Amino acid sequence: MLEKTTRINYLYDFYQSLLTEKQQSYMSLYYLDDYSLGEIAEEYEVSRQAVYDNIKRTEAMLEEYEAKLLLFQKFQQRNRWIAEFKALIEHESVTKEELAQAIAALEKLD
Amino acid sequence: MLEKTTRINYLYDFYQSLLTEKQQSYMSLYYLDDYSLGEIAEEYEVSRQAVYDNIKRTEAMLEEYEAKLLLFQKFQQRNRWIAEFKALIEHESVTKEELAQAIAALEKLD
Repeated sequence: MLEKTTRINYLYDFYQSLLTEKQQSYMSLYYLDDYSLGEIAEEYEVSRQAVYDNIKRTEAMLEEYEAKLLLFQKFQQRNRWIAEFKALIEHESVTKEELAQAIAALEKLD
Repeated sequence: MLEKTTRINYLYDFYQSLLTEKQQSYMSLYYLDDYSLGEIAEEYEVSRQAVYDNIKRTEAMLEEYEAKLLLFQKFQQRNRWIAEFKALIEHESVTKEELAQAIAALEKLD
């Protein structure tokens, strides 16, 4: 459950600009500001069910965008590369060839 | 004109998965396979004007996606970083601190 929330938070971060203003408001209140469905419903004078449906549809849209554009996946790959590279340069004996190989691996990620 | 074509080619590469099948077909024939508007019109049995309008609308959509997601801009920034980094590691005297600074700059690009 926590992992799912973290994933949706990341996907929202990457794709929020593709959502409508209302979708952005609901998602932001629910996921970033920790409002309950009932509180959002009250704020917007709509039913709790309407808020729930909107958020579920938006989550599905975020997953569709990720399936098409892979921004979160590529972000994670670049982060792993950065962690490995930081470990590499900690070695006293790192060679120019090792650095060049690491960069070639980074270029392949795009 | 050539620069514009190159830009549209890149934007198409980044955002084609967000286009409809017909948009993808027209764009691919026009920009990648170098068909003329007339040839595409004949192939799909529509007017030349319809093909032209579709392609112009698609180009505008690609620019809207880029304004929202900046994938091409970020790709260019990472490429510049890679070029600078390659130049850096060519120096005999590159230090661990310089490498760490370069990585910090890369992390800021995301």
